[in-house]
Amino acid sequence: MGKNTIRRYRFGNPTDTDAVVLKLPAETGEIPRLKAEPVIDPETGSEKGIRFSFGMDPEDILFGLGETVRGQNKRGHRYTAWNTDEVSHTEDKQSLYASHNLLLIFGPGKLFGIFLDDPGRITWDLGYTRQDQAVIVSENGDLDLYILEGESLTEIAREFRHLTGRSYLPPRWAFGYIQSRWGYASEEEIRQVVGEHRKWHIPLDGICMDIDYMERFRDFTWRKDAFPDMKAFVREMQENHIHLIPIIDAGIARVEGYEPYETGRERGAFCTLEDGSAFEAAVWPGLCCFPDFLNGDAREWFGEQYRPLLEAGIDGFWNDMNEPSLFYTKERLNKAFEKAMEQQKHPEDYEGMWNLKSVFNGVESNPEDYRLFYHRTDDGERIRHDRVHNLYGAQMTRATAGGFRAFDPEHRFLLFSRSSYVGAHRNGGVWMGDNRSWWSHLELAVQMLPNMNLCGFLYCGCDLGGFAGDVTEDLLERFLQLGVFLPLMRNHSALYTRDQEVYRFSTVETMRNTITVRYALIPYLYSEFMKAALTDGMLFRPLAFDYPADPRACRVEDQLMLGGECMIAPVCRQNAWGRYVYLPEDMLMIRFRSASDYDLVSLEKGDHYIELKPEEFPLFVKRGRFIPLGAAAEYTDSVTGDGFRLIGWDAEKTEYALYADDGISATPVYEEHLKILREGFGQ
Amino acid sequence: MGKNTIRRYRFGNPTDTDAVVLKLPAETGEIPRLKAEPVIDPETGSEKGIRFSFGMDPEDILFGLGETVRGQNKRGHRYTAWNTDEVSHTEDKQSLYASHNLLLIFGPGKLFGIFLDDPGRITWDLGYTRQDQAVIVSENGDLDLYILEGESLTEIAREFRHLTGRSYLPPRWAFGYIQSRWGYASEEEIRQVVGEHRKWHIPLDGICMDIDYMERFRDFTWRKDAFPDMKAFVREMQENHIHLIPIIDAGIARVEGYEPYETGRERGAFCTLEDGSAFEAAVWPGLCCFPDFLNGDAREWFGEQYRPLLEAGIDGFWNDMNEPSLFYTKERLNKAFEKAMEQQKHPEDYEGMWNLKSVFNGVESNPEDYRLFYHRTDDGERIRHDRVHNLYGAQMTRATAGGFRAFDPEHRFLLFSRSSYVGAHRNGGVWMGDNRSWWSHLELAVQMLPNMNLCGFLYCGCDLGGFAGDVTEDLLERFLQLGVFLPLMRNHSALYTRDQEVYRFSTVETMRNTITVRYALIPYLYSEFMKAALTDGMLFRPLAFDYPADPRACRVEDQLMLGGECMIAPVCRQNAWGRYVYLPEDMLMIRFRSASDYDLVSLEKGDHYIELKPEEFPLFVKRGRFIPLGAAAEYTDSVTGDGFRLIGWDAEKTEYALYADDGISATPVYEEHLKILREGFGQ
Repeated sequence: MGKNTIRRYRFGNPTDTDAVVLKLPAETGEIPRLKAEPVIDPETGSEKGIRFSFGMDPEDILFGLGETVRGQNKRGHRYTAWNTDEVSHTEDKQSLYASHNLLLIFGPGKLFGIFLDDPGRITWDLGYTRQDQAVIVSENGDLDLYILEGESLTEIAREFRHLTGRSYLPPRWAFGYIQSRWGYASEEEIRQVVGEHRKWHIPLDGICMDIDYMERFRDFTWRKDAFPDMKAFVREMQENHIHLIPIIDAGIARVEGYEPYETGRERGAFCTLEDGSAFEAAVWPGLCCFPDFLNGDAREWFGEQYRPLLEAGIDGFWNDMNEPSLFYTKERLNKAFEKAMEQQKHPEDYEGMWNLKSVFNGVESNPEDYRLFYHRTDDGERIRHDRVHNLYGAQMTRATAGGFRAFDPEHRFLLFSRSSYVGAHRNGGVWMGDNRSWWSHLELAVQMLPNMNLCGFLYCGCDLGGFAGDVTEDLLERFLQLGVFLPLMRNHSALYTRDQEVYRFSTVETMRNTITVRYALIPYLYSEFMKAALTDGMLFRPLAFDYPADPRACRVEDQLMLGGECMIAPVCRQNAWGRYVYLPEDMLMIRFRSASDYDLVSLEKGDHYIELKPEEFPLFVKRGRFIPLGAAAEYTDSVTGDGFRLIGWDAEKTEYALYADDGISATPVYEEHLKILREGFGQ
Repeated sequence: MGKNTIRRYRFGNPTDTDAVVLKLPAETGEIPRLKAEPVIDPETGSEKGIRFSFGMDPEDILFGLGETVRGQNKRGHRYTAWNTDEVSHTEDKQSLYASHNLLLIFGPGKLFGIFLDDPGRITWDLGYTRQDQAVIVSENGDLDLYILEGESLTEIAREFRHLTGRSYLPPRWAFGYIQSRWGYASEEEIRQVVGEHRKWHIPLDGICMDIDYMERFRDFTWRKDAFPDMKAFVREMQENHIHLIPIIDAGIARVEGYEPYETGRERGAFCTLEDGSAFEAAVWPGLCCFPDFLNGDAREWFGEQYRPLLEAGIDGFWNDMNEPSLFYTKERLNKAFEKAMEQQKHPEDYEGMWNLKSVFNGVESNPEDYRLFYHRTDDGERIRHDRVHNLYGAQMTRATAGGFRAFDPEHRFLLFSRSSYVGAHRNGGVWMGDNRSWWSHLELAVQMLPNMNLCGFLYCGCDLGGFAGDVTEDLLERFLQLGVFLPLMRNHSALYTRDQEVYRFSTVETMRNTITVRYALIPYLYSEFMKAALTDGMLFRPLAFDYPADPRACRVEDQLMLGGECMIAPVCRQNAWGRYVYLPEDMLMIRFRSASDYDLVSLEKGDHYIELKPEEFPLFVKRGRFIPLGAAAEYTDSVTGDGFRLIGWDAEKTEYALYADDGISATPVYEEHLKILREGFGQ
């Protein structure tokens, strides 16, 4: 077996998932690296899946699995690929909203990757049961297994992107600061939020509109009382350099006369029960039908639905509830009621009484409901949903991206989704779902980020300040300091939680100053993002990817390499006025307070304790490299491609390739936009 | 105002809480340090509590509040004193099982403490709403406010103990390793667990018996089929150097003919509804009555109930469910059913349907239920429970300790409780409640520990390995490494979770080696514990207490001073093979692998990255001091008071006062048991 190879092994008869773009012939020989064996049902004696396993040495480190809880190193937990609307990302959770079934195994003399292209339930026991064993079980048993080998972690990551295709390119304005909140319900409210930002000179490029803008939460509608002339409002906002970004949910309200429902029904675009009638479950608008995103015709129909909003001038969307989340089916709810009635007859059964809460809690996104409905592939094959569950959100993203292309193939649109599967990275970004105003979720974002990049999702970010729960001033400030570097820099919070817009706090100036750093860095961040996307690289990387021979670097969990020049090390602990940082080589620290107020400190390879007051955050630039720092700006339209301060240490003879383009055309070409900065300067 | 003072200010007409032992006259002058003002109900215009507030400088650090989530420094969160059976100790939680209303404020030129002796609901906004403001609201409005001033944090801590009394003294065997699990249901099962420990030479001194040992979960009973001769079984275990530690819950099953219920009813020992009839709510045994622990006669009655178990030879107990936890009252459950029936009539109200889960979730420990019932003080005054809610567990502890004294005043008994209030520290220890198998809960224990010590609770510990959820091998190993230093070293886990006894894991030898270190340290740990208890000191302290002039030390969150010689710095992150440590002075690191296998490394004051393989953990000894290290032992009975290795650096001219006694007599006298080690040795 050569140094750089991808080998495909087929098991059973898998569904086409749209994950890969490189069609490799299936291997027939023995599978390297893994032991594969059927899972036998002890009752029936029949096969019910496939089990892969391999032994691990104490030093082995695991990367991958994209959007999951816990560390950069995934060793020591059980994960389950099963896309879930999970409201609480505690460290014991096995599933979040996405399934990214790529794992890299890296140890002394050991380096390979495995990718399971299988959209059903997969469990990953990565040293949970035994520290020295990994056991992966596919319930479907029908899948393509890819074994990736290469000379480095970075090369395997690149190979994986060759296999699965180029990452989504957002417009440049999507690198601006975005304000969001579940609850913005009218033009007037949004106008006021924008106005406060402009008044305080808090940079801003976008406003996310959550479900409140819709007419009774129905997709592709908007409340005419609250948004009497959407087109005019979009134009007004655009003149203010603000992009409106409405949400679209997966479910289509089952309401007679509601056009998306009527046209969807006519086109046969909804998922069906076994008897062919439409599957229905309640989500925000009440009972809904669920578009069959696995079907090409249904995708095309769904993509067309975006047109009225696109025609009103909207150029960005976020797709939600697409695991799909199910509040309840009538069937499941009736069973809960029956159980409650029955229980009421046994007042002395205190444990049964107590468990009624579990009965009603269990109604939501119940596994049995995912076995009730069916998809129809383009070949006319019917597939029960649970076998392809993890594809649903990804194929919704595909449908949306198709709608954009049909509407305007020349331009880029902003799109990010909650649920995803590998392959969706070609069509849109993702956010990390409904996190909380927890310090631990700040660190979780740092740990999730490189693994999402590894799986192809470059345009992503967490809800800054935390979605659920009440933020504190200091937590929002530290979240923003991380957000400065995230491609998607969005402050988002839930209804009924503390108001979270920056101007609500006594420390508004400090927070504004933090956001100015983002705008000064946009030329660099956009450049590095586009280079990563166009060369199948990663924007954020675990230190192990760049310093595989340095065992200390390989176990760093709260620092990340950023682009070709930098490292970040956010403060993730409350009341900390500094943090430890491990420098895998000499680096220059920029200790930012604002775009124009910072210290430069040159630091040698090794361990350092860095003092960082609440308003300070660091960016580390490798010795011998430099970065271009622009000026503060209040929106991306005014970010220019020149007038940079070049910040580096020992970087007199260095070149930096700045990628710059119009930020909006659909087909950028990396080489043509190359620009070289070459200047002699020291620290 | 002098340097060391405690001043008491009285508001309204507070209930006697048994928190303080030093009866100070109430001050009449202006209150220093705080602004106090009535809370006015905006609707009625009447007073409904008192609000205390003070401004904070950016540098100010807050210690206190005992058993609460988050950091050693309590700044930046809202806490609510309201004892709660909280199943998930996430960082947003405002209440756990205990109320310890002491706060120390420490900043440049600023040092004072406040203690609110008020057993009702108190909210502490410590820089949540505004970073620079602390606002404390007592709902009762009836309380004693104490302002403590002193020359140092340590002195204020000592003053507080002078005010509230000497900490509980456990028997020495309680420093042994204790195995516990919800689920041990018979002699045979316990015998097997003990046997496995002995077979693997895993040290062991105690087995906790959870509710399963009881007859239908009824207090003070045991299952005769599973424990046919309790006295013989206790003796058999004692011969094996094992102490049995049964659980006792707060609620008494309301069952005709069940003796504790019958005698309690006769004595009028239960809490009552407004009409004088008994208050009933369901917990483990079904509907229960709740002893009125605020009443002296009821406490005496309850204390007597322990006698059958004490006579069987039991010498340790844990008191649980004493917040009190209420699964439901009939009233609350009926309301939930009514709501469900009503909801069923509105199938199109999808949000109402979805919210049924909240309806049933809200039945448990509902605030309204705590307003339903009454206590009767020794003076015959009736008090509604919610006004004294936070006293309930503490007064149960008091009742139990009284029962022990009545049975045998000459000896110490082990007692630890889930719920507590200041004052309970004189009568028993506490465990930190139902934590989870989370890495973050390992760190939480490190952060909670010094604040519990500050509030008087010296004998305490967390459930090693985590109570709820499934542990991994590496997490249990790191939990045990912390547990080596905790006074209560107990491995405990919940029914339906992964088996968590050390011998269940492939790494059993490593874990056993870790526990051997505990036994080698028992002479030192017991000595330091007893010195702390008998001199009103703290066993574990934030670094700020010992190095107040060192701003770096003051913000350290994951290290603790231990006794007079040591500092601990546990590894709390998964897959970490080391950690950073800040040394506030030169120290000798003992890197333990077992009682007999360790490295000694002398380290200078400052920052260090310490390599610590999964099986290694450090103890730091101050330069110029030494500690006595004993030999491994399989139970505390065989831990001897000599044959020590004396481990230190530059400690040739040092003395160490070893406290040693018989480990069981009720009235130890510190001075008489003093023993001086004085030997010349270097590293």
